Amino acid sequence: MTLPDSLADRAALGSGRDFWSTKVVGDIPSISLIDGPHGVRKQATGGDNLGIAASLPATCFPPAVGLGQSWDPRLVERVGRALGDECQAADVQVLLGPGINIKRSPLGGRNFEYFSEDPLVSGMLGSAWVRGIQSRGVGASLKHFALYNQEADRMRTSSDVDPRPLREIYLRGFRRAVTEAKPWTVMSSYNRVNGVRASENPFLLTQILRDEWGFDGVVVCDWGAVVDRVAAVRAGLDLQMPDDGGAGDADVVRAVEAGTLDQAAVDRAATAVAALAERGRAGHRDGVVVDVDAHHELAREAAGKSIVLLRNEGSVLPLAAGGSIAVIGEFARTPRYQGGGSSNVNPTRLDVPVDSIREAAPGASVSFSPGFTIDGSDSEAILAEEAVAAAAAADAAVLFLGPDAGQQTEGIDRTEIDLPAGQLALLAAVAAVQPRVVVVLSHGGALRLAPVVASAPAILDAALLGQAVGSAVADVLFGAVNPSGKLTETAPVRLEDTPAYLDYLGEYQHVRYGEGMFVGYRWYDARDLDVTFPFGHGLSYTTFAYSPVSLSVEGDDVLAALTITNSGSRAGREVVQAYVSVPGSKQVRVRRSLGGFASVELEAGESRDVVVRIERSELEYWDIRLDRFVLEPGDYGISVGSSSRDLRTHAVVHLEGEHLRIPLDIESTLSEVMANPVGAPLVKAAMRETPFSDEGSEALGMDLDRMMQSIPLERLITFSGGKVTRDHLEDILDKANAS
Amino acid sequence: MTLPDSLADRAALGSGRDFWSTKVVGDIPSISLIDGPHGVRKQATGGDNLGIAASLPATCFPPAVGLGQSWDPRLVERVGRALGDECQAADVQVLLGPGINIKRSPLGGRNFEYFSEDPLVSGMLGSAWVRGIQSRGVGASLKHFALYNQEADRMRTSSDVDPRPLREIYLRGFRRAVTEAKPWTVMSSYNRVNGVRASENPFLLTQILRDEWGFDGVVVCDWGAVVDRVAAVRAGLDLQMPDDGGAGDADVVRAVEAGTLDQAAVDRAATAVAALAERGRAGHRDGVVVDVDAHHELAREAAGKSIVLLRNEGSVLPLAAGGSIAVIGEFARTPRYQGGGSSNVNPTRLDVPVDSIREAAPGASVSFSPGFTIDGSDSEAILAEEAVAAAAAADAAVLFLGPDAGQQTEGIDRTEIDLPAGQLALLAAVAAVQPRVVVVLSHGGALRLAPVVASAPAILDAALLGQAVGSAVADVLFGAVNPSGKLTETAPVRLEDTPAYLDYLGEYQHVRYGEGMFVGYRWYDARDLDVTFPFGHGLSYTTFAYSPVSLSVEGDDVLAALTITNSGSRAGREVVQAYVSVPGSKQVRVRRSLGGFASVELEAGESRDVVVRIERSELEYWDIRLDRFVLEPGDYGISVGSSSRDLRTHAVVHLEGEHLRIPLDIESTLSEVMANPVGAPLVKAAMRETPFSDEGSEALGMDLDRMMQSIPLERLITFSGGKVTRDHLEDILDKANAS
Repeated sequence: MTLPDSLADRAALGSGRDFWSTKVVGDIPSISLIDGPHGVRKQATGGDNLGIAASLPATCFPPAVGLGQSWDPRLVERVGRALGDECQAADVQVLLGPGINIKRSPLGGRNFEYFSEDPLVSGMLGSAWVRGIQSRGVGASLKHFALYNQEADRMRTSSDVDPRPLREIYLRGFRRAVTEAKPWTVMSSYNRVNGVRASENPFLLTQILRDEWGFDGVVVCDWGAVVDRVAAVRAGLDLQMPDDGGAGDADVVRAVEAGTLDQAAVDRAATAVAALAERGRAGHRDGVVVDVDAHHELAREAAGKSIVLLRNEGSVLPLAAGGSIAVIGEFARTPRYQGGGSSNVNPTRLDVPVDSIREAAPGASVSFSPGFTIDGSDSEAILAEEAVAAAAAADAAVLFLGPDAGQQTEGIDRTEIDLPAGQLALLAAVAAVQPRVVVVLSHGGALRLAPVVASAPAILDAALLGQAVGSAVADVLFGAVNPSGKLTETAPVRLEDTPAYLDYLGEYQHVRYGEGMFVGYRWYDARDLDVTFPFGHGLSYTTFAYSPVSLSVEGDDVLAALTITNSGSRAGREVVQAYVSVPGSKQVRVRRSLGGFASVELEAGESRDVVVRIERSELEYWDIRLDRFVLEPGDYGISVGSSSRDLRTHAVVHLEGEHLRIPLDIESTLSEVMANPVGAPLVKAAMRETPFSDEGSEALGMDLDRMMQSIPLERLITFSGGKVTRDHLEDILDKANAS
Repeated sequence: MTLPDSLADRAALGSGRDFWSTKVVGDIPSISLIDGPHGVRKQATGGDNLGIAASLPATCFPPAVGLGQSWDPRLVERVGRALGDECQAADVQVLLGPGINIKRSPLGGRNFEYFSEDPLVSGMLGSAWVRGIQSRGVGASLKHFALYNQEADRMRTSSDVDPRPLREIYLRGFRRAVTEAKPWTVMSSYNRVNGVRASENPFLLTQILRDEWGFDGVVVCDWGAVVDRVAAVRAGLDLQMPDDGGAGDADVVRAVEAGTLDQAAVDRAATAVAALAERGRAGHRDGVVVDVDAHHELAREAAGKSIVLLRNEGSVLPLAAGGSIAVIGEFARTPRYQGGGSSNVNPTRLDVPVDSIREAAPGASVSFSPGFTIDGSDSEAILAEEAVAAAAAADAAVLFLGPDAGQQTEGIDRTEIDLPAGQLALLAAVAAVQPRVVVVLSHGGALRLAPVVASAPAILDAALLGQAVGSAVADVLFGAVNPSGKLTETAPVRLEDTPAYLDYLGEYQHVRYGEGMFVGYRWYDARDLDVTFPFGHGLSYTTFAYSPVSLSVEGDDVLAALTITNSGSRAGREVVQAYVSVPGSKQVRVRRSLGGFASVELEAGESRDVVVRIERSELEYWDIRLDRFVLEPGDYGISVGSSSRDLRTHAVVHLEGEHLRIPLDIESTLSEVMANPVGAPLVKAAMRETPFSDEGSEALGMDLDRMMQSIPLERLITFSGGKVTRDHLEDILDKANAS
């Protein structure tokens, strides 16, 4: 494939032919980039449509809010492969996903499209997804790059963030996915970052993505994100979508001709788009036919592994497949299984929970009562009454609850995390007549669960599970699947406790990420706040015993080895989590952060050795003096357990790390200079020219020595009334730095 | 007075002759600028000393942490006048104070030098102080300008703050004091603000201080704050202190000669210093002799009004002046009454609490037991045992407690807010044998008081009270003075709850003010956090009844009128507080903020009408689009009460405010354009060229209309595939803006 000769043709490669595809230029073919990520949203009609019309049927796998709860990269990779096959069958070259933004606030309208509040979970699962789909010759589009954490005023607002949260939280997962899985494309987001549009941001698109991380694919903007195409191309954007009628291409040509845009940038973009088209052509496999049943089964397996058993007092679950069961809640009949917006998939089929329950328990008497309406309309009193009567008459009640419609939709943030009052009242009324209550929660983001805990001995977090929602829930309810999911987002006690509560959304196009690195569990832990269910939490129908952990160093990584035993009476899977703490750190540090995790499947009574790898990248901090990650020398605590607040075993490993030697300068403090063996006596002598003596301490009622430690060296000139000269201090610095 | 002719002489006016005075140049006299603010710290020896040696005796009034608790501008003004007379007697022309920085964290090492976590309290009391001292012909130096809220690395760290907290919290008190009281000088602080040294910061020293606020005095740097004198002069600094041996003057001359510094800046500084010297000369009064006794009495009155009765279960206080009283705690014998550092005063006398108690209750049997040592040394067990025995044998026990030494000292921040464990154990042991326990707290900043509340039915917050500490505490203990102070800083439940807990101090010379406007009670209220004692709290030996409040508008201000009745049996003073809330605001707003306050002194049974003025400046918000304060039209709630969480009466007033009309532009959102009656139909028509139609909503499972609201107008070009042109949109904008 060769680049076209003309500037106009090269510029033309940098924008879409229509809503979903690129242009044919010379021998460079067009490719399709289609919405995902948890299913292929290919338009039913031809290329003349504008991207909104109904789409062809495709398997609706669990959205990220659900799938993430599996904590299972291999499962995610398998889903990615299946999606790749569906793309091949639909002649799609790039599926627009995965979304790996951090859930900064539970109110984020698109949280359901993202995996976690934690960058390691997001990065690991995002990488797996990319690997999976790309192994089938179809490209991923890692999105939304970057700091896109709210819907409100999403095309204008600047995410104002400091370097450490930028690097250690918001970019960390992107870095992992880009460097490990090499996505064909990265999608720049709508918002601004520190004042500059992400799609026109050279710091993000060139310095970080290409220069630091070595990204070699195409940067495509989110649909409609580019305002100034010339600025975008200059910044590192390759492909503007959708088609803008050629205006951007013309701007690019004019700018090159006027000398305000380097043609090299246009060529870079054109080359990247051409290479992407070539990747698409090379990856194409003819005649792929989707095995709809097999994909549905995979969707069911994935959904089952994604369900979190939050609570199971008195072992209410699993239910016996006999007796009488009152199934309650409109969601049991009209399931909520995905969110609204660009990711909305037209499923190949849909497992309705109440039907699946009846199928799974043919010997049971299963009643259904809607209990409430999805829009909360006024027939609820009668519905609730019927449901309570059904619950009273049954051996157990299963309630399907969830927030109002429109609480998980692109473009709109939530305003609360409460379940509807009607549903909570229904739950309380049911619990008053029926002790064996199981609540199944469908939702796109964290909820206030205290009132659910107060009434329900058993709670399943079903998040959004895709088209196999019904069968997957039935599998877990009756124990065909032993639940093994873990929360990827903390369930807070109150919205007021959440880290971004006071500055979420910001105003007038600025949102300050004031909580810094303290996002998600990092916040609740650092402020020692109670939570309803902690990050990483998830029970099982069996129990797991943890041996003491032993730590070793392998290359740059720490290995945490231990034995996990299934100490219960049922096969199950445990997600073993290793958290890092650096209590002696000289930096600001979170109290603990997830460093690694591993799944282990165990028969009843079985033991297995598990090794959790904690990569160096998860131990480092971002040094704002040096503008890079640094591994600090010192003792690292590794705690391993079943959730972030159920830590079973702890050990400490000493890491040599990197002994930084930052050159002293005239602004170094006296204590910094005195830490240098050569500098110490020299600066001590110079200090004798100042009034900061021992008698001074007494006169001022304070410890002058201690106060002096923070005085920059240069100030000795002033405080000595000029007796200490700058030359003298420079001489001290030269000697100290040379030592 | 005329400016000297030579550039060198003009430059020379801009720096000190020595540590504490300016140069004589031509007929411009030298003046002295001497540490304060709560007493005159004039050196005992001659001009050759370097500022640290012991100082001459002077009245030690309560430091700001104490005096602020009076909430009494008239009292503060009287203290200012007394300080002015002491300056006259000591031939001092400028006393370096008041300090009105915001207490951002209870850990701030210099919080004891500041008034409050609230800018209105800080600004009102700071203004009063300035008015008081300047009425005596002596200048004040309002400090530390600005954003100086921690000691750690104080000469390098940048306070990184957003515009709204900058304006609405950190500069608000300075604005009030500068515009109302016109201090002769303002002192620029050591730290950086948003990356630029405060003493070399044109935004602070010229744009805000002079251009916006009309400041016409001298900007003097904190001692040793200037690094680059040329940059400082250019930025608006007039006077560099102390003497640096002439290096800075020479730099200024060279820079003017090299054309890198405008001579106008040098002339501005020289003119300002000359005018200050002239003010000093004009203000001088010969033969002022300090009435040491009268000043001590004023110090005692001020201290008495500053004591806060935090708790008085079972009316333990006031104590009867008979029977037996066990006085416990080393601080009763060795009182803590001021902080360490530049403000440390050598007092004219010192009222020792245990002596004052004996004097006040000559008929009582008063024992003294140290109970603990100030440095927590190991003889404490025996001391505690003796104290408990004394408490058991007495009718009541008065414990004088306080944090470790060095917990209120310039240059050093605190690391905790707990009382020493030994003191808490002593308190618990005393409470176990003696139900009538009174705790008197001496401290420079907020403490964790839950363990004190658990043991002591009566608690007096004596903060730091100056040299009359002993007599003032005795006055309150026995009821000669009815306590009337109110907290100016919230007493939090835990350090972990405090707003700046996670980013206080920052690292590597940057501290992010991540909590934004939510400082002090604004934080606890917005996050709905429990506190041990709220901002504004303070009890009395009598009770006050509040009538319903009625609101009226007078000019730009709101007047809250009500009747306060002393419903108890003892004369007393109530500080009536009015808080503002704007529940319907379109801006981010704190839940409530102090809008005004007033003191009322009432005999038992007496009623008085009180009018609390809430100035327009306390109702406005800082608009980041317009870069100025704006009074939003709408309903303002005014709650009046005895503390920020003891609100007794509420009313609402509608204010016309300012109806902003921000011109629409190409980045305005569709909803913003649609709010314009002319723009609405035009943009609706243009939207028909895009795919965002009703059927789209169904296909995507979402409300497209709602999503569209946040799309900038300009994006219609892209989303219509170029069918909507920029010219067309500009035309819509022109018509809408012209309407």
